Amino acid sequence: MAGQSVTDLPTPALTVDLEKVKRNARVMLERFQKLGVQLRPHMKTHKTVECADIMTAGSRRCIVVSTLAEAVFYADRGFEDILYAYPLPFDKVERCAQLSERLALFQVLLDNSAALEELRRRPLKGGKNWHVWLKLDCDNKRAGVPHSDPAALHLALAVSQTEGAELTGVYAHCGNTYSCSGVEQIKAVAAETTTSTLQFMEKLKANGIHGVKCSIGSTPSCSHPVADMALLSEVHPGNYIFYDVQQSLIGSCQLEDVAVRVLTRVIGHYPHRNQLLVDCGWTALSLDGGGRLPTGYALIEGHPDLKLLSMTQEHGRMEPVSGKLDYAKYPLGSLLSLIPYHACATAAMHPVYFVHSEGTVVDTWTPTRGW
Amino acid sequence: MAGQSVTDLPTPALTVDLEKVKRNARVMLERFQKLGVQLRPHMKTHKTVECADIMTAGSRRCIVVSTLAEAVFYADRGFEDILYAYPLPFDKVERCAQLSERLALFQVLLDNSAALEELRRRPLKGGKNWHVWLKLDCDNKRAGVPHSDPAALHLALAVSQTEGAELTGVYAHCGNTYSCSGVEQIKAVAAETTTSTLQFMEKLKANGIHGVKCSIGSTPSCSHPVADMALLSEVHPGNYIFYDVQQSLIGSCQLEDVAVRVLTRVIGHYPHRNQLLVDCGWTALSLDGGGRLPTGYALIEGHPDLKLLSMTQEHGRMEPVSGKLDYAKYPLGSLLSLIPYHACATAAMHPVYFVHSEGTVVDTWTPTRGW
Repeated sequence: MAGQSVTDLPTPALTVDLEKVKRNARVMLERFQKLGVQLRPHMKTHKTVECADIMTAGSRRCIVVSTLAEAVFYADRGFEDILYAYPLPFDKVERCAQLSERLALFQVLLDNSAALEELRRRPLKGGKNWHVWLKLDCDNKRAGVPHSDPAALHLALAVSQTEGAELTGVYAHCGNTYSCSGVEQIKAVAAETTTSTLQFMEKLKANGIHGVKCSIGSTPSCSHPVADMALLSEVHPGNYIFYDVQQSLIGSCQLEDVAVRVLTRVIGHYPHRNQLLVDCGWTALSLDGGGRLPTGYALIEGHPDLKLLSMTQEHGRMEPVSGKLDYAKYPLGSLLSLIPYHACATAAMHPVYFVHSEGTVVDTWTPTRGW
Repeated sequence: MAGQSVTDLPTPALTVDLEKVKRNARVMLERFQKLGVQLRPHMKTHKTVECADIMTAGSRRCIVVSTLAEAVFYADRGFEDILYAYPLPFDKVERCAQLSERLALFQVLLDNSAALEELRRRPLKGGKNWHVWLKLDCDNKRAGVPHSDPAALHLALAVSQTEGAELTGVYAHCGNTYSCSGVEQIKAVAAETTTSTLQFMEKLKANGIHGVKCSIGSTPSCSHPVADMALLSEVHPGNYIFYDVQQSLIGSCQLEDVAVRVLTRVIGHYPHRNQLLVDCGWTALSLDGGGRLPTGYALIEGHPDLKLLSMTQEHGRMEPVSGKLDYAKYPLGSLLSLIPYHACATAAMHPVYFVHSEGTVVDTWTPTRGW
């Protein structure tokens, strides 16, 4: 495929703009270097080794993953200092133990004492300790102990007092930035999450627990960090490497920063219902976003008047936002470029990504899948 | 994995009940044998060789696929008489030609004269003809020439008059059965689609075109065929091999016929918001259905009082349909079994399926992906 124009790719195809990916990676790295905060990039959006190399500037160190399959995938490729930032699943303790024993630094996360008990029942070999992050819920309302709940401090103390385990860090995901609109709102949530996390760190210190890292993340907050974030040890955004329409609407990025597209071709003209058909169904784009954009499930690049109305497994129905469709603009076989609503969801549908530089394919990246 | 209990599988996991799959396959085969109609099962739901063997009763003949990747996957494994029932994509003509030249019988589909022109420009080697199906739109409003549009007959005549091509069949997908509720409505749509298709076949005959097959499909209509469907050459359902909650609501099947589950484990208890967390996000279930069920994105087997409220990439939030959650019923680490809303969408998320017989894993099936 290398050397080919993206416009000659069989469709549907996920394309990745290498220059934009490099720029997004560099901007984020430099932003937190300046703040003196370690960037621990999240792999969940792309799940490829090539993109991980770009996000870690070639160090293959200090990453976060969403599945154990990702952890193993990266460990097998020489990555180190991997944080499996997912509430410890009891069925995966043995595999986590093996990774902990094998790597110089593998880290797990938990938010309940039953998980700690599971770790206690599986001491690591070779005199190693479990490296444990405590998941704090700073009003994101997904996983984690609520930051103001005394149970959070109790659990932190329990981890630090457990033989064979050490409290390595405190982790909060400010996913509630996803309901923000604009930089001001993003910064308000980032500030709140940072304050809650730092206040909790003070409580730890007051209880004699020192040397613990703290990390918050989400692409919106890390794209517009507040000054206090300089007091964190780490941040862990992920989506920023690709960005997407959702992030541009939240205010994390400009639309021109979005590095991924789904290329699709016109496969049907249906003037009797003012529609055309494209070869992009939900297997190529996902149903994320629910079609809530004025242009439906995606933005159609260069065609703001066109709407991706609905999708089935392999078909997408398009129609004009208003008025009559000018079919001469969209001949059968012609190519359209969709900017995805949610890059993580769209990338998850593709067994291979076509990486290009200024429209010429330079590489293909193969993500890992499963759990 | 073989010999293991499904309850010991790492989660999330897609499980397939082999006995139900075999029964669903047998019932559909026998139903159309009795009607004297050829069953051409659709592979799009599962995309595996093992399930294709079951659906074709081991013949490896007479299947329909939704992507060219599926066509190649099955061709490479000795399948024959493959119908690529997708509006001919112009970027894939060469690959279609190669399959046509390689297989005894590979068939394409089209609904416009530009596609026919593409075929004309790529004559098959070895004196072979393109086997062409005409896609008819019998009010499903996705692909196809409207059945009553004179253009449909003109296109059929054009195909049959094209050197190097022959009109093999007429194909209609009654996807509009998906908006039905109950057997009566399903049968009404099945009857309409059948009538429209058969009337079109009469027009063909009146124009001197004979020996053309006709096929309609959709799991609802083929689960409840009307008498006139005995006059068709073929039918082409696919989802019936797994069925799902959507099909049970449409009236295609009983809930007990649904052969697939997503197994998930409880990974978090959050009494302060009356919720628990499971390790099933949209990477394991898909967002299909949009959470419209009273129980959200899926049915939770044996727990009609529990709702899968929302999902992110790897997390699912559950809460009671009403009242307070009894956490003692859902200990951390315990297993829940989700019946998917749409089996095609859920299966598409899994790199491997765990096949069981009465709860014991007997096989793993690996689907093909991509295009």
